[in-house]
Amino acid sequence: MSKSVIIGQSGGPTSVINASLAGAFEAAQARGAKHVYGMLHGIQGLLQEKYIDLYDVLQTPLHVELLKRTPSAYLGSCRFKLPAVDTSSDSYKQLFDILKKLDVGYFFYIGGNDSMDTIDKLSKHAELVNSDIRFVGIPKTIDNDVVNTDHTPGFASAAKYIAATVKEVVRDAFVYDQNSVTVLEIMGRDAGWLTASAALAGGYNSEGASMLCLPEVDFDFDWFVDSVNKLQKQYKSVVIAISEGIRVADGRYVCDIANTAKYVDSFGHRNLSGTAQYLSGVLAQKLNCKTRYIEFSTLQRCATHIASRVDVTEAYQVGGVAVRAAYDGHTGKMVSLKRICDDPYLMVPELVDVGQVANAERKIPASWVTADKLGVTDDFLKYVRPLVQGEVTPYYTDGVPAHLLPPTAILQNKY
Amino acid sequence: MSKSVIIGQSGGPTSVINASLAGAFEAAQARGAKHVYGMLHGIQGLLQEKYIDLYDVLQTPLHVELLKRTPSAYLGSCRFKLPAVDTSSDSYKQLFDILKKLDVGYFFYIGGNDSMDTIDKLSKHAELVNSDIRFVGIPKTIDNDVVNTDHTPGFASAAKYIAATVKEVVRDAFVYDQNSVTVLEIMGRDAGWLTASAALAGGYNSEGASMLCLPEVDFDFDWFVDSVNKLQKQYKSVVIAISEGIRVADGRYVCDIANTAKYVDSFGHRNLSGTAQYLSGVLAQKLNCKTRYIEFSTLQRCATHIASRVDVTEAYQVGGVAVRAAYDGHTGKMVSLKRICDDPYLMVPELVDVGQVANAERKIPASWVTADKLGVTDDFLKYVRPLVQGEVTPYYTDGVPAHLLPPTAILQNKY
Repeated sequence: MSKSVIIGQSGGPTSVINASLAGAFEAAQARGAKHVYGMLHGIQGLLQEKYIDLYDVLQTPLHVELLKRTPSAYLGSCRFKLPAVDTSSDSYKQLFDILKKLDVGYFFYIGGNDSMDTIDKLSKHAELVNSDIRFVGIPKTIDNDVVNTDHTPGFASAAKYIAATVKEVVRDAFVYDQNSVTVLEIMGRDAGWLTASAALAGGYNSEGASMLCLPEVDFDFDWFVDSVNKLQKQYKSVVIAISEGIRVADGRYVCDIANTAKYVDSFGHRNLSGTAQYLSGVLAQKLNCKTRYIEFSTLQRCATHIASRVDVTEAYQVGGVAVRAAYDGHTGKMVSLKRICDDPYLMVPELVDVGQVANAERKIPASWVTADKLGVTDDFLKYVRPLVQGEVTPYYTDGVPAHLLPPTAILQNKY
Repeated sequence: MSKSVIIGQSGGPTSVINASLAGAFEAAQARGAKHVYGMLHGIQGLLQEKYIDLYDVLQTPLHVELLKRTPSAYLGSCRFKLPAVDTSSDSYKQLFDILKKLDVGYFFYIGGNDSMDTIDKLSKHAELVNSDIRFVGIPKTIDNDVVNTDHTPGFASAAKYIAATVKEVVRDAFVYDQNSVTVLEIMGRDAGWLTASAALAGGYNSEGASMLCLPEVDFDFDWFVDSVNKLQKQYKSVVIAISEGIRVADGRYVCDIANTAKYVDSFGHRNLSGTAQYLSGVLAQKLNCKTRYIEFSTLQRCATHIASRVDVTEAYQVGGVAVRAAYDGHTGKMVSLKRICDDPYLMVPELVDVGQVANAERKIPASWVTADKLGVTDDFLKYVRPLVQGEVTPYYTDGVPAHLLPPTAILQNKY
């Protein structure tokens, strides 16, 4: 008899994490899944038996299309780390009891490195307890730091938002006839993929950003002030894109030196921010010029209104491929994206062992950073340009993009 | 013989200030203007004889369409206050000499309250010196604080950006199953039109912002903390939109109390910012909850990629109407927008005396603020909804919105 499917979303949201949910849902529906459950707030919610049946809320194709255009994680998310695999652990026992009660045959988790750790542990635990539930991971993160995949769904839409916004800010910043420096703070704890994407703002009709500061390059205050000083002699308006996660050579985050780091999440990741604010203060003082800082903050991960069509399509596809793989008998896998060709851009999904993905981190290759450390090479642009192509028109109602209403339980905070 | 036209842009940029330039240019071109000059950096640049001939750069209709889709002030802007009207003043003498040399018959200035002061002074000076140059103002400001007009071009696109972004942020903010408060900082020195527009994020598929803090309402710290505390009992995630210009009852800006105001411009306006950062710190301390602040910063005035079609159209029209008025012999006027009807929305341009506009300021009527002071009434929504309707599709090239290349002189910083 037909089993049920359960899908969860985990970690920081992206503009297209719901497109992956839509892809997995439709593939499960097409395979006759008895129920397609959605965990509310990931496995943290599932442990409290918080879930909905997606058949109840995604009743028509219009609902599915609206879901694709809805920012943030529709099902809610969590940052929850499972304990080490151990057959005597209460968490695992409880989780597998719930899955059994729901008659779940296929379990999908949409997330980044940490979420793949969850898939890895659950699939290993299933083997230990002879469960035939299949566990497959669906990649997602704006940070693009997942290994064994060309890129991760979510990255390209954030990159497109950053490129479009940096281009607009660059124009805004040189509106007055005066010297100024604008410091932009972009997400990315240890990998600079998003900050590097600010380079897309340059081109035949824009100056682009004058300088990038990536976490892959040790940050040096004297070098920074000196570089900006030189750029100022060349350009009236200097726009600098910096990663929130830049560090000095001894490993300390610049925002720690500024004493602005705010809190630590349950994975041990620090909330980094205030780097741009601090550095714009340093520049104002050292160079005696007008400075401004702008933090792109969560806008870069939720600006679904300017999502990349390539990204939305791929996010939808990896959701569907994960479901096909699980129904084909695979478990302990993540769907990854393999690039066949840059031009024309060709990408195929494939399966990789989730254990090789979990907790690892992919950085920008050193060869893609220019020799003067101020920018990225054409190889980076060749890599990223195909990913930001195309748009998905929002469904505007009353002048504002429409979204799918959140699940009632989340909306009313009742379960 | 046919005279020349000169057009300048002044004050803070908007998403549609270039649509007004396009409208004025095409109307002047249609009337056979000998040259259509563009001042570079407003009258400040004109005093240094910095200008271009727009016939050289707007050679095809595609150039004009790209101009409409280009953020910031294409010609560059300034914040420059003319001295009191005085026939012995060097500035006026110099300006009128330059205009005579260029054989200018018609002078247009696209700007807000302060720029209308410039038009007022120049037209009065022209009368004193028997010059027949016509001076007409074209309204522009995201702040929507110009009097004697239903609204100002630029406001609606900023409002649309704010509505769409707040809606996205609201979804992002309740992704985790934890209590949190997000404080959004929105532009508006003394008038809360933009902050109030965050109310557009609410509706049938969004919670919207939970609370607005407008500069029209005296800010009280105890009331603020108490209100947020009450909201927290109702909603897991509380999103608050505050104006950068909120003040306590004795008139001090909240950001002054926070000691974060940065500099004063040449009109004497303070750069206000840091209000949200300060208040999110206050809330974290008093309510012991997770808080985040987001400053929309200049993004709200340059996000041309999500401009309102109504706004772009009206901005284009007021540019053209200004030119028609000047050719009809009017001077010392501003083009204003008169609303005939909310539903169906009907708006007609008319001329008003610029002297009645200059240096005045229009605030949100007290009757449009709800009794609990936490929001705005349906009357406000009826006013603003028609303005944010429709979109203008950007011309994407390589995945990023294309803009018209800035004038070479501005780009290369050479004049």
